[in-house]
Amino acid sequence: MNTEKHTSGISKYIPFLYVIWADDLLSASEIAVFKKAVERDSLTEAESSLLNSWLQPDHPPKDELIASWKQQIDGSGIKLVESDTYPLTSFSMKLSQTDDSEGETPDENLKFIEINLGIQPNHYRHLFDVQRQRSSVADFYDPGQIDLLLKGEHTSQIDVFREFLSDPIFSWEISTEKDRFRMKVLEQVKHLATKGYGAMAYDKAYGGIGNMPAYAGIFENLMFVSGSLTVKFGVQFGLFGGSIQNLGTKKHHDRWLRSAGEAKTLGCFAMTETRHGSNVRGIKTTATYIEETDSIIIDTPGENDNKEYIGNALHAEMATVFAQLIVNGINQGVHAVLVRIRDDKGKLMPGVRIEDNGDKLGLNGVDNGKIWFKNVSVPRENLLNRFGDIDENGKYTSAIDNPNKRFFTMLGTLVGGRICVAKGAVGGAKMALAIAVKYALQRRQFNSGEKVQEDLIMDYPSHQLRLIPSIAQSYVYHFTLEQMIRDYTASSEASRRKVETQAAALKALITDFANKAIQECREACGGKGYLTENRIADLKNDVDIFTTFEGDNTVLLQLAAKGVLTDFTSEFNSDSYGDLLKLAGQQLSDRLTTFNPLFTNNTDKEHLFDPDFQLEALRYRVRRLTFSAASRIRRYAKKGIPPQQLSLKIQTHLIQLGKAYGIALSYEIFSDFVNRIDHDKMQFLFRKLGSLYALYHIHSNAAWYLEHGYISGNKSKAIRQRVERLCTELRPHVVSLVDGYGIPEYCITAPISKP
Amino acid sequence: MNTEKHTSGISKYIPFLYVIWADDLLSASEIAVFKKAVERDSLTEAESSLLNSWLQPDHPPKDELIASWKQQIDGSGIKLVESDTYPLTSFSMKLSQTDDSEGETPDENLKFIEINLGIQPNHYRHLFDVQRQRSSVADFYDPGQIDLLLKGEHTSQIDVFREFLSDPIFSWEISTEKDRFRMKVLEQVKHLATKGYGAMAYDKAYGGIGNMPAYAGIFENLMFVSGSLTVKFGVQFGLFGGSIQNLGTKKHHDRWLRSAGEAKTLGCFAMTETRHGSNVRGIKTTATYIEETDSIIIDTPGENDNKEYIGNALHAEMATVFAQLIVNGINQGVHAVLVRIRDDKGKLMPGVRIEDNGDKLGLNGVDNGKIWFKNVSVPRENLLNRFGDIDENGKYTSAIDNPNKRFFTMLGTLVGGRICVAKGAVGGAKMALAIAVKYALQRRQFNSGEKVQEDLIMDYPSHQLRLIPSIAQSYVYHFTLEQMIRDYTASSEASRRKVETQAAALKALITDFANKAIQECREACGGKGYLTENRIADLKNDVDIFTTFEGDNTVLLQLAAKGVLTDFTSEFNSDSYGDLLKLAGQQLSDRLTTFNPLFTNNTDKEHLFDPDFQLEALRYRVRRLTFSAASRIRRYAKKGIPPQQLSLKIQTHLIQLGKAYGIALSYEIFSDFVNRIDHDKMQFLFRKLGSLYALYHIHSNAAWYLEHGYISGNKSKAIRQRVERLCTELRPHVVSLVDGYGIPEYCITAPISKP
Repeated sequence: MNTEKHTSGISKYIPFLYVIWADDLLSASEIAVFKKAVERDSLTEAESSLLNSWLQPDHPPKDELIASWKQQIDGSGIKLVESDTYPLTSFSMKLSQTDDSEGETPDENLKFIEINLGIQPNHYRHLFDVQRQRSSVADFYDPGQIDLLLKGEHTSQIDVFREFLSDPIFSWEISTEKDRFRMKVLEQVKHLATKGYGAMAYDKAYGGIGNMPAYAGIFENLMFVSGSLTVKFGVQFGLFGGSIQNLGTKKHHDRWLRSAGEAKTLGCFAMTETRHGSNVRGIKTTATYIEETDSIIIDTPGENDNKEYIGNALHAEMATVFAQLIVNGINQGVHAVLVRIRDDKGKLMPGVRIEDNGDKLGLNGVDNGKIWFKNVSVPRENLLNRFGDIDENGKYTSAIDNPNKRFFTMLGTLVGGRICVAKGAVGGAKMALAIAVKYALQRRQFNSGEKVQEDLIMDYPSHQLRLIPSIAQSYVYHFTLEQMIRDYTASSEASRRKVETQAAALKALITDFANKAIQECREACGGKGYLTENRIADLKNDVDIFTTFEGDNTVLLQLAAKGVLTDFTSEFNSDSYGDLLKLAGQQLSDRLTTFNPLFTNNTDKEHLFDPDFQLEALRYRVRRLTFSAASRIRRYAKKGIPPQQLSLKIQTHLIQLGKAYGIALSYEIFSDFVNRIDHDKMQFLFRKLGSLYALYHIHSNAAWYLEHGYISGNKSKAIRQRVERLCTELRPHVVSLVDGYGIPEYCITAPISKP
Repeated sequence: MNTEKHTSGISKYIPFLYVIWADDLLSASEIAVFKKAVERDSLTEAESSLLNSWLQPDHPPKDELIASWKQQIDGSGIKLVESDTYPLTSFSMKLSQTDDSEGETPDENLKFIEINLGIQPNHYRHLFDVQRQRSSVADFYDPGQIDLLLKGEHTSQIDVFREFLSDPIFSWEISTEKDRFRMKVLEQVKHLATKGYGAMAYDKAYGGIGNMPAYAGIFENLMFVSGSLTVKFGVQFGLFGGSIQNLGTKKHHDRWLRSAGEAKTLGCFAMTETRHGSNVRGIKTTATYIEETDSIIIDTPGENDNKEYIGNALHAEMATVFAQLIVNGINQGVHAVLVRIRDDKGKLMPGVRIEDNGDKLGLNGVDNGKIWFKNVSVPRENLLNRFGDIDENGKYTSAIDNPNKRFFTMLGTLVGGRICVAKGAVGGAKMALAIAVKYALQRRQFNSGEKVQEDLIMDYPSHQLRLIPSIAQSYVYHFTLEQMIRDYTASSEASRRKVETQAAALKALITDFANKAIQECREACGGKGYLTENRIADLKNDVDIFTTFEGDNTVLLQLAAKGVLTDFTSEFNSDSYGDLLKLAGQQLSDRLTTFNPLFTNNTDKEHLFDPDFQLEALRYRVRRLTFSAASRIRRYAKKGIPPQQLSLKIQTHLIQLGKAYGIALSYEIFSDFVNRIDHDKMQFLFRKLGSLYALYHIHSNAAWYLEHGYISGNKSKAIRQRVERLCTELRPHVVSLVDGYGIPEYCITAPISKP
């Protein structure tokens, strides 16, 4: 064994040499940084040459040599002090005895390496005998600063709102009995309404502040109280009130909107039927105009054509009912009509029958029910007539001639709901992640035998891999949705279609993410995560249905893909799929390059962490999937395969495309946001979160990238290693990251999250 | 457009030509079969040559030609009758007018193609105007026959048991109030005990039939009643009774085993502590032998060292308590002691404190609680002394000198519980899959516009991909666990270690599968799946914790991997990881071949469906991951990285290895089983399920196979396409497959599963 004594010029570099060679992820640039330091240092030629001989990637130091470095380090008996400003530099100086006096300035060249390689204690902690003077988390980042970025322009509204949530009416308790739970949630909804929160998105004239983005922000925060409250709040103010606001005209606004926002008129949104969920256009309920009485008759034709799963059905006085509008014997397609379902005393109106949907997996504080109408008559004025009306002469009129376009225009006004659902899902995921992380920083299990204390489970790589990519995703999706809601609010008729496509993809992608993240949190907390008191159980069960309501994820991904395929221009969201055939006639092209081997094999850290590479990789997948889907459509169409069958053949392809589109879009929006952060240190953190997000998704689809020759096998492995490494690098900041969500202490009641 | 009139010799082949060329998955062997038929047919030379010209893979027919075939087919106005024995042959004969008279024998050559290519109506149904005379499912396979294979040698016991489950005491209802639910489950457990089901695995002398495999079989069937019943049953008879049976000796058996089996003595299994779940060896409860009184004092040292999450804690009279056994001041390691915790009147014994764990995500019919002991004294005889005893002189004795080995021998006797947990998980998945499939065969959504009826959701490829691979997995795991429980029961001391490794991997793999499958079922049933009455909600919440209890999955996968690494010989399941270092000294070798391009590029159907290819691919992954893990261990060890840190560095690698091992093992066992099926038609079905299982898992790890050059990009794509195609091929048999689970009608109460 080589145990020769080195000069101090050599010795001081040994800890650094050991750290970089004991690791697997040495990159060319790391070598370059090291060599630069050696070059700058005033060493003898022999020293420089010896050091350089240990810096040859092609001829790495022999294992015996590395082990001898370790021996030298261990033999010194010196402890590494994590709380030092440059811990590895200080340690190395002590080892080489260049640091005789206390407080000497750190060696410039060692510092140069430590900073430029971004070596953090958690990279090498396991290699040394560490004197821990710090807790298991770093306070390098201020959670308050992070939270400010998240709240953005809604900071004041959200701060006031969070303060308001400390009201005891919002305090959490185990709720197993649905009727009691429903009453409690109803009271909470009314309480929120009294403070104007229900009407936030409505115009000032109706009690609001006309601020949809801020409304979406508080909506997310409601998830910290309960999923049931969030959903019932959304049904009353977003769906019911929103339908009046978006589908009605001034007469409806004047009569109902303020009252809806104040929760004085409780309402429901009766669209889905037992046999028609995703296929709204196929609903059977009829709204027939009767000229004689100038009224509209709402009717449920068959026993199974009832409205189904309608939130607020057990409490509401009014319902926005979607039905086939028949005027003069002609079906004008689906329209919405306001129908009174209960009188002032809460008694059902004649012809209205309502049944409780009963117990559910989650959201048991929401009263879902089935509704049947038997020839229920309402005045003609109750037709929400913004996009289609019946005039005084009993004639149907609409500014939108094409019935298909009219239908999707009506549905399009509800896109805000999809964005809110995704925001709620992110809120649920944040809550679960905060609890799981706080637990993982207390829970210890197993040790190395000689140690008294067991290891924190947060320090296990599998645990980091379980939670930290989800934290990164929560941040990316937070900012993506902030941008989406701004775009939605500002969108013109022309850009609305694009926003719809984006919202469809993101709602599916993000609700799916949230469910997976919460599931990981449950498992990461073991049996403790299974106890209702620790909140993850409710979050899991409540968020579960987010994948289904406001548009089933599978259906939405296909919708998004069709939007991408037709480049947002034509009426992609037709059910008939016929429009896809238009593509068959179009000229298709794609940059089908054979990739440069230097690119497909480039495993260097700088390259893998380069946002340009990451974004291009994510975009390439969208482009390639779009091209191949279009090619397949054209090929099948030429062979005479009918449209509906064609769409079945490419269904799984379209779903992949929809997801890929959502992922690339999110990263694009997030990267733009990160570029605008004017605080270097914070930008550095967010860029790392973005890198983890991008590489995590590239890694998840590595098979596809490999199949297409976009990356080589080695690059694929390198990406996986970088994902694991990024988790380790973010490990010290996990508490800052979950505290950065800004969830009030009084909302996180989980005992396992408490010290 | 080519619309020339062909001879009947040509015409009759046109539907076949259209089917194979309209598809994407044409393989060389399909062409060969077709050519063979043409060769055998008595055609003119011109006819043969024209047909052969359309059978060149390198020069496929032009799209216009294919479209003209379609036109000819459509123009004929002939309907394809699915109920014909050879539907495509009959159709083709009508088209070419070679079938003038009713009932003519089918053309031999067309039949030859139809049979040999295994063309099924669901492959080509979308291409023709089909006259459906059959329901949406085939009755080609008899579910009763399938069920017989599943029940195997336990058929009579399981049949009697299922009949017994029709007793109204087992009828399902919504249970939200935990105390009432717990009482109901307790009554059910007692009722099962009166019929001898609790004692099934015990010897005849103690009321049983000594049949552990049959016990495991009925255990799985209990999941059709409820997860809570299954778990409480398992705690009472498997864990509590099992601990007496396996860790105790005759004196314990005589005194307690019959009474436990009859549920007259209710007991719990007190191992886990609040701060020690996975790390059993670190538990803090002490059992101190006091010579003066010849008794053992059970004590909980600190407030947080209580037993935690103990099932049956609120009802039990006895507890098997795991504690550090201290004799003469020496800690002899973890042993089990029987402790009375309640008196005959149900009052807590002095020094015992029990608290309810409260509401949980699921399993609320199980009474989990925390238990503290304050100097509770029990007689020396209460030590379960099979592996370690205190003799009359107060001296500790054990036949197993090595404390480490002793500890794992004690834990090893509990491996049966892990297999049962996996069986329960499969039972839960089967139940959810049966409900989801029955719903998918009734639920219709969307249509092609011109059709009146909407399409069944089971006919959507995304829906098939969601459910059918899980059905295949349920079958593979069923037979894998049947074999495992036989191996476990029959295992000798020498083979026990191997069974432990296998059970560890399978418990983790299968409980994870079950959770994912049930989640897919919930989403596949949309909002209906979210209603408690449809049962999936309970299954989801009950099975969720199966990933955690009886060994956390992450920990078990690492345990399994270490077993594989040390080839089952040494004491792999030491916590200290030190044994892994032994590998560092061993000679490592691996068949590191550069794969033959003919192999890595072979996308032919026969090759991909060849069980030898499939098994070798799954085994290769195990071998390669084993080799690379061992190499990394050696490399790190040489560099002086300490064992515990080393194990952290390879943790995610070990988890992958553990999973890969479980997957290959399952397929191996299943393939052996399939080879033994003596009924060709049934063997064909099961082989298809096996193919789907194997290709699904190869596809799931495609990135890894691509990285290692084991498959080419094209082969990876071909595997994905085959997975989708296998789902389509199995589609007609889905009902037979889920009915084949043999779940009694009175257990599947879900309204959505009913016609």
